Amino acid sequence: MKALTVDVICQTLSNRIASGDFAVGGRLPSERDLSEQFSTTRITLREALGQLESQGVIYRELRRGWFIAPPRLAYDPLLRSHFHAMAEQQGRTAATEVLDAQRVSASARLAQRLAMTEGAEVYRIRRLRRIDGRAVLYVEHYLNPQYFPELLSFDLTRSLTTLYQEEYGISYGRVGFTMLPMPLPKFAAPALKVAAGSPSLFITRINRDRHDRIIDCDYEYWRYDALYIDVQVREEGQASA
Amino acid sequence: MKALTVDVICQTLSNRIASGDFAVGGRLPSERDLSEQFSTTRITLREALGQLESQGVIYRELRRGWFIAPPRLAYDPLLRSHFHAMAEQQGRTAATEVLDAQRVSASARLAQRLAMTEGAEVYRIRRLRRIDGRAVLYVEHYLNPQYFPELLSFDLTRSLTTLYQEEYGISYGRVGFTMLPMPLPKFAAPALKVAAGSPSLFITRINRDRHDRIIDCDYEYWRYDALYIDVQVREEGQASA
Repeated sequence: MKALTVDVICQTLSNRIASGDFAVGGRLPSERDLSEQFSTTRITLREALGQLESQGVIYRELRRGWFIAPPRLAYDPLLRSHFHAMAEQQGRTAATEVLDAQRVSASARLAQRLAMTEGAEVYRIRRLRRIDGRAVLYVEHYLNPQYFPELLSFDLTRSLTTLYQEEYGISYGRVGFTMLPMPLPKFAAPALKVAAGSPSLFITRINRDRHDRIIDCDYEYWRYDALYIDVQVREEGQASA
Repeated sequence: MKALTVDVICQTLSNRIASGDFAVGGRLPSERDLSEQFSTTRITLREALGQLESQGVIYRELRRGWFIAPPRLAYDPLLRSHFHAMAEQQGRTAATEVLDAQRVSASARLAQRLAMTEGAEVYRIRRLRRIDGRAVLYVEHYLNPQYFPELLSFDLTRSLTTLYQEEYGISYGRVGFTMLPMPLPKFAAPALKVAAGSPSLFITRINRDRHDRIIDCDYEYWRYDALYIDVQVREEGQASA
């Protein structure tokens, strides 16, 4: 009986969310109000809310309650459209904020990824990216300055892809992605306004130009509930773009 | 000064782990012992441990302490090798346990994924998969019985890929992947021996045969720290296999 009740509550809440019942501010009524509406216990209600959370339908904010989750962005590594294009193709509004941009020396691990020597000077650009106003991505771009002299003097809120093309005549070639689900590291948490240790998706991109030279490396820290990876693979083990 | 100390502790611990210092049982000394070894406070030590955790170097077990993380499995959706092959290619030992296998009726969502009608009978096979003895993947396979008559009478610890080929002459064609980082749902937690709500990666695979008919759909729930996604994309937006 109890399992049925949880399912019925889930289904009813899902339907009400889908029909726009709670659209104002995107916030659900309090757990107490919801328990009363469903004539159920807090325990059963929380079980139903937990199920909806794991389906990505709602999410919880610390001390603020439950909110309707905006749809996740589909991220297709094979399409390789840049952040703003990807958002716009999906009917969303993208915004980029530059946190800082400076010269730093490459750590051993970064140097290896960029095929440079440890301690070599690289450009580091840290940016925060929003979808429909919500901060979803904290990213650190590391660039080999050899290919992009004076890059730091440009407007860095623009797409780097476009900047590379227009100012340096450089286009992306091969790209390597690794994607690690992991707890959000402490340094990335404040910008995303999420508790450190929350689930996140960490994406490393190593980008090459058309001459197969490694030109930059991005470390992307995503809110876990802001995206999903979507890949269609054809029979031959090749991908359909 | 404090930031330096945390970094130094991280680096020293990383080096000791890499050199095999703690190999026995894979367990780190207690936090108290480690604080003493580094002549530091528990707070600083925990900050260092937290950093190593977010790098995937160590992980925490409830009430048991800190452990050295085994290497993550590289999961390349473009390679499409099955679980056992993927593990063996990476020098790991795979094992599969069948939790149950039965006929169930398709929910609306599942029916849509399988291109069947809601309530239609499907086979559901639930399995637990291990790498080097550790439970890393809880998976639910949903099969269209039309293509696999009497499949439930076979040994289901085998690779389904092989079973399809050998018993039904069916090979995979196009595959669609979606990958969602999300809190581990309650029903998947006990088999993985992880707390419900822990970070996980949920992968849905929709598999077609060479005639482009949808033959099955897998729901994979991975321990977040057991894998990473690795994709190499060529210039044309095509993938290199």
